[in-house]
Amino acid sequence: MTRFDITILGCGSAMPTTLHNPPSQLVDLNEKLFMIDCGEGTQLQMRKYKARIGKLHSLFISHLHGDHIFGLPGLISTLSLLGRTDDLTIYAHRELDFMLNPLLTYMGSHISFKIHLRALNPGEKEMIYENKTIRISSFPLKHRIDTNGFLFEEKEAPRHMLREMIAFYKIPIREIAAIKAGADFITDDGTVVPNRILTRPAAPPRRYAYCSDTAYAPEIIPYIEGVDLLYHEATFADSELIRAEETYHSTAGQAAEIAVASGVKKLVIGHYSSRYNELETLLNEARAIFPETELAEEGKVLSL
Amino acid sequence: MTRFDITILGCGSAMPTTLHNPPSQLVDLNEKLFMIDCGEGTQLQMRKYKARIGKLHSLFISHLHGDHIFGLPGLISTLSLLGRTDDLTIYAHRELDFMLNPLLTYMGSHISFKIHLRALNPGEKEMIYENKTIRISSFPLKHRIDTNGFLFEEKEAPRHMLREMIAFYKIPIREIAAIKAGADFITDDGTVVPNRILTRPAAPPRRYAYCSDTAYAPEIIPYIEGVDLLYHEATFADSELIRAEETYHSTAGQAAEIAVASGVKKLVIGHYSSRYNELETLLNEARAIFPETELAEEGKVLSL
Repeated sequence: MTRFDITILGCGSAMPTTLHNPPSQLVDLNEKLFMIDCGEGTQLQMRKYKARIGKLHSLFISHLHGDHIFGLPGLISTLSLLGRTDDLTIYAHRELDFMLNPLLTYMGSHISFKIHLRALNPGEKEMIYENKTIRISSFPLKHRIDTNGFLFEEKEAPRHMLREMIAFYKIPIREIAAIKAGADFITDDGTVVPNRILTRPAAPPRRYAYCSDTAYAPEIIPYIEGVDLLYHEATFADSELIRAEETYHSTAGQAAEIAVASGVKKLVIGHYSSRYNELETLLNEARAIFPETELAEEGKVLSL
Repeated sequence: MTRFDITILGCGSAMPTTLHNPPSQLVDLNEKLFMIDCGEGTQLQMRKYKARIGKLHSLFISHLHGDHIFGLPGLISTLSLLGRTDDLTIYAHRELDFMLNPLLTYMGSHISFKIHLRALNPGEKEMIYENKTIRISSFPLKHRIDTNGFLFEEKEAPRHMLREMIAFYKIPIREIAAIKAGADFITDDGTVVPNRILTRPAAPPRRYAYCSDTAYAPEIIPYIEGVDLLYHEATFADSELIRAEETYHSTAGQAAEIAVASGVKKLVIGHYSSRYNELETLLNEARAIFPETELAEEGKVLSL
């Protein structure tokens, strides 16, 4: 099975602490690295956790609060020092221009590659990237400013041909693609061999959803239903429910309620407020509602 | 004696590594914190080394290469989240506007304090800050773009009055300020008591000079002559002399030669190229020329 790993580079929030870095994650999928958010120090975290910076494919910025973007100038500058030549696409709200344009002017002809800013749609779900095997979509979250979540999914893979059946029925090679796609096989004497005895189903497509920053928002459930892994922010403990509502963030219990209602397989919480030195409270509050919860922490790798 | 400490927050160079952060230092002088340079992650380093961010007085940016400035947005944002109300002066080349203006526009009315950009003179030495007891100057270095070094110095303190002499000669309190400033004392019977037996000299003013980034440049010697501590970049080992010249950086040996020629008391080298995993070579090359050399490292405190 191809790799589908999420590495947490930072799971703190607006105010960095000695315990947590500002938000950033790497999704290692189909031999490409996709970065979600890029808080200050992200490039240092990549080095610390030995991420292969040369495989960085594109960037996905959920929203334009400083803790999610202040690592961009350093990362872009380092990619250029390393001599990157592949274009770099940044999926972000169009106002990221405010930071990118002066940076690009400042770097001028020194930059070794091109940057494309692709504007996110803050209003509805939209597929923003696909190739043969994967698909990436953005969808709206509920925060103080335009904010999007991201869904990384594998496409349905063709069924696997059973090798012994090729020999048994003497199936010509030219038929195999059609059979993998679901066709039956008709022998020379006209017998129909049903597809289900010639093939077995591929592994079901895996899906990862990233939801940060967001208030408790049941309206996001259709976008993330049934994913294998949901990252949902849990900035606060349930005791800070009012503060969470005021700031358009979620409590640990609210994150777990979204996980239950979405029928996800597993929940990982993060984006912790700097007020928490220990996270057992958040974990326990979430697990009381959704047992399959774990805590994000810097350097943790979640494999699907 | 009042505190005069330099804390190294980062002593790497353009390409950050797991060993060294980008350049930044704190000068803790006269109960104020002055920051020199602000590479990405500087605010995180302040937390790590428990620097008192509330005492941050002003910032001094040597030049506008990314490794010296990419920590500014995060630091400014955090100062605002913490509710700073004191104005913040940034001494830097005027082109820092390219980064500050969009940031300030972006932060808009959310920022809790005012920022003043004071343009450095890249052509000659200039005093840029003084108060009753200290003086800070900038002076030109030799790099690919306009770059300034900084000199932090105590002012000459008044002589110390010897308490036993006040009693012995029955010196009125109103005379004491003049005597501290150097005056003799004339007794009621007209005897002149020379100042030198009434006072002892104050400790000599301490001075710290920061020189990074710079090529080997003997023309800076007059600015740094006799300082107690010189920070001079040593990006390369002597074997990379040609590379140093091409990039307007210095070798360890060149840093030491400047230290010798300037008659400084102590040299600390830093701004190491990311190619060096160990620094013994740099240290040995500098010490062969100037034995009173030490290596900068993150978290090191140098007290004058």
